[in-house]
Amino acid sequence: MALHAVILAGGSGTRFWPLSRELAPKQLLTVFGDRSLMAATVERARQVTGDTGDIRVVVGGVLFDELRNHLLAAGDGDIAYLVEPAPRNTAPALALAAADVLRADADGIVIMLPSDHICQDGERWQRTIAAAVAGASDGSLVTIGLVPRSPDTAFGYIHAAHAASDGFAEEAAGRDSHAVSPARAMTAIPVTSFTEKPDAETAERYVAAGDYYWNSGMLVARADAILRELERAAERHPDVPAAAGNLATVACARAIAAGAADTDAAWDALPPVSFDHAALELSDRVKVVPADLDWSDVGSLTSLERLAAPDARGVRIIGQGVDVDSRDTLNYSSERLVATLGLDDVLVVDTADATLVAARDRAQDVRLVVDELRRRGAPELTQNKTSLRPWGSWTMLTRGIGYQVKEIEVAPAARLSLQSHTRRSEHWIVIAGTATVTRDTEHFDVAAGESTFLPIGCKHSLENRGDIPLRIVEVAIGDYLGEDDITRYDDPYGRSVDTDTPTPY
Amino acid sequence: MALHAVILAGGSGTRFWPLSRELAPKQLLTVFGDRSLMAATVERARQVTGDTGDIRVVVGGVLFDELRNHLLAAGDGDIAYLVEPAPRNTAPALALAAADVLRADADGIVIMLPSDHICQDGERWQRTIAAAVAGASDGSLVTIGLVPRSPDTAFGYIHAAHAASDGFAEEAAGRDSHAVSPARAMTAIPVTSFTEKPDAETAERYVAAGDYYWNSGMLVARADAILRELERAAERHPDVPAAAGNLATVACARAIAAGAADTDAAWDALPPVSFDHAALELSDRVKVVPADLDWSDVGSLTSLERLAAPDARGVRIIGQGVDVDSRDTLNYSSERLVATLGLDDVLVVDTADATLVAARDRAQDVRLVVDELRRRGAPELTQNKTSLRPWGSWTMLTRGIGYQVKEIEVAPAARLSLQSHTRRSEHWIVIAGTATVTRDTEHFDVAAGESTFLPIGCKHSLENRGDIPLRIVEVAIGDYLGEDDITRYDDPYGRSVDTDTPTPY
Repeated sequence: MALHAVILAGGSGTRFWPLSRELAPKQLLTVFGDRSLMAATVERARQVTGDTGDIRVVVGGVLFDELRNHLLAAGDGDIAYLVEPAPRNTAPALALAAADVLRADADGIVIMLPSDHICQDGERWQRTIAAAVAGASDGSLVTIGLVPRSPDTAFGYIHAAHAASDGFAEEAAGRDSHAVSPARAMTAIPVTSFTEKPDAETAERYVAAGDYYWNSGMLVARADAILRELERAAERHPDVPAAAGNLATVACARAIAAGAADTDAAWDALPPVSFDHAALELSDRVKVVPADLDWSDVGSLTSLERLAAPDARGVRIIGQGVDVDSRDTLNYSSERLVATLGLDDVLVVDTADATLVAARDRAQDVRLVVDELRRRGAPELTQNKTSLRPWGSWTMLTRGIGYQVKEIEVAPAARLSLQSHTRRSEHWIVIAGTATVTRDTEHFDVAAGESTFLPIGCKHSLENRGDIPLRIVEVAIGDYLGEDDITRYDDPYGRSVDTDTPTPY
Repeated sequence: MALHAVILAGGSGTRFWPLSRELAPKQLLTVFGDRSLMAATVERARQVTGDTGDIRVVVGGVLFDELRNHLLAAGDGDIAYLVEPAPRNTAPALALAAADVLRADADGIVIMLPSDHICQDGERWQRTIAAAVAGASDGSLVTIGLVPRSPDTAFGYIHAAHAASDGFAEEAAGRDSHAVSPARAMTAIPVTSFTEKPDAETAERYVAAGDYYWNSGMLVARADAILRELERAAERHPDVPAAAGNLATVACARAIAAGAADTDAAWDALPPVSFDHAALELSDRVKVVPADLDWSDVGSLTSLERLAAPDARGVRIIGQGVDVDSRDTLNYSSERLVATLGLDDVLVVDTADATLVAARDRAQDVRLVVDELRRRGAPELTQNKTSLRPWGSWTMLTRGIGYQVKEIEVAPAARLSLQSHTRRSEHWIVIAGTATVTRDTEHFDVAAGESTFLPIGCKHSLENRGDIPLRIVEVAIGDYLGEDDITRYDDPYGRSVDTDTPTPY
């Protein structure tokens, strides 16, 4: 009974712009600590899957290359990627993962984790998952319910058949100590019902009752149970629209997992629906493990406020900021200088190429800005100024008619793929380290302070054989500079060398 | 009786940050139209000084190179610069200019113009100055009084002995037509008193009275009268502190104009005082020419609001901005993307390297931000990302340990000085146009797409002999990249080739 982590990497990150972009949703950002939410989720998954387990990441086609580059750069290579032909919410995504697990392990248990939250309780987290795994062995769908800390109306609530055991309640009462007795076992409790985002009064009542828990979005279940409960929901509730597509979803997921050809159209036809609506809320085999984790949702830009303590006027400065006389204001800048003066209840979020200034109580409406940027085709919606690659990173310094200038950093022992361009030549000037360059049949080193020229059409590759990061400035010149003008002849990182939408480098 | 324009280029521009910087005060910005306020002031001066007149600019030492580069780039070469050893407000500055004029022209008339306002009435402006020149011929100090458009408490008010003539009042009433009869002569009227920044009630009374005018800061007077009235004020008002330094001021100004050595200490010892306080308010020989000019002070960042009409909610977007649901808000960006969401009464002013977000009613307090930046030694206080030069401009793209990358544009037929560096080498990659390069004894062309290398110590120069702008990317590499590592061997623009504080290029 091996454990298979499934991490859902969907989410367009529109509520986190300008920090997040379409190709850098919030789970890839390293805003909350040294690691991204995604890398931290992978690490948490490793803590519980053990030697026989494995990790799958379900990701959309648009984000796949970026995500893999990101995890490779974070040192996470042994991950299986399940690429969704199109985003269809969590029911199809989880079905796909369950079908894939099932083919490899008939008794496999799926630990499904979203990638857009912060969770820092290592030991307690592991005990929680262990309790959920135990609860899932009978074929139940086991949710993780967080002990509510406030009557927050942004959460879904899970109503358990009874409150957690006395032992657990005591533990929860001392939640800040983190000194947890392993003797107090957590257990999975049957679930009575789910409520999505209640009104304030209802939420107050739930919290007072003691047997309601926040829905964390995490789920533990046997892979076969996930598919079976989708099918059962459709059979038992033929009148519920959310379950109407379940049979098709399961069939499509099984077909894709079996390697069937031409499944894209079937996938595209699936209704986008959450696993909560399609199965959890309709099943009579759902449990919850109440848990008091140091967990938080990263729902909107106000989450940034956790990064700095407020001053006496409620002003938080993160980065290069300066404030004079503001109140209850966030001044966040990733690299530039931002000055705030006399503001009340304002969020300022500044990145290298875009800035958002919003009323603090409108943080949830950043998607309206994103909608407008999408209408305009604004490039600032798609990509950050710096992009991670498995070999390092690159930053666009400037771009004009006929040329663009990038700064490229190559990690020690890393190499870019052998490639050529049909419309642009490139100058490489080495800033630090030594570049080992291949140019058609030539192989030579370029030391710091030196440069080399790569004419249009030449096959070239860049390698760092040294032990410090190699940094170069690349000046590309040509009448067309699109990233799709690239032919790859190999790739050290196993990325496709023949695709319609190649990733730069 | 030649006319000598004197333009005061002082002012640290602290109320206009981040658009203005210490080396780019607001009078050098091209924010309000195609030309900077300074270049527009020079143009206005040329309209009235005629064939026999000339133009002097009084400027502080710190700003001198930048200002001259700026005016050279704007095509204004035939200007005399009077460099103040240290800023001492307008009384010493004007005395210095008057003494300099006096040495060249004993009967010279000074037309003193500040450089930090917008004035667009060509023909009416010329008639106003002509009336002031006529009024100054008897030795009077002639101010230009603006017909007040509102009881603005930010202005100083000039009380005339009587209101303007009926003919003028009629003209003022039709101020929007600009169809002015030359027959209606403006005349200079004796001044009764000055009031600085009255309270609101007083300002209302002044505007209702009809014989009060806004003090424009412009002044027309014989050069000898300027010095004489400074001296007379000191003699007639020995108890007024503002006039206590006048004799020393005049003596120092005459000494500097006469080319005396070692005048810096004497200048440093002068009290910083405005000409208004030191002379105008104390003199019995002051007149005012009432004028109804299309004139406006550029006092604070709210002046930017004139650049765009507001939408129905009072939102003005200038540049790349996007707004959702804000009210009475300015979204100004010079090149980056700025999104505003749900704001009320906020000013956002975004530049390439710094952003200010301020409550709209705190625009006057930007100096508090500047004070804080000065305490921190923030480079964003000193210089913009792009600097104009007589030969074109340069933009810092990025700067790191051991290297920096600039984009340089050289105008057709322009050339950078022959120079060398002791601590850095440079790579030039030509993006557009053709570079004619001198490197020690070599002379060669570098075409677009090509590059060249300038080792440490080589004497080099860059020239554009073509008829389109030459654009290059310069990657400088070295252990010290300060702009003071430059030795100039010539300079096509007559700039000093041997100075302690050289200007880059």
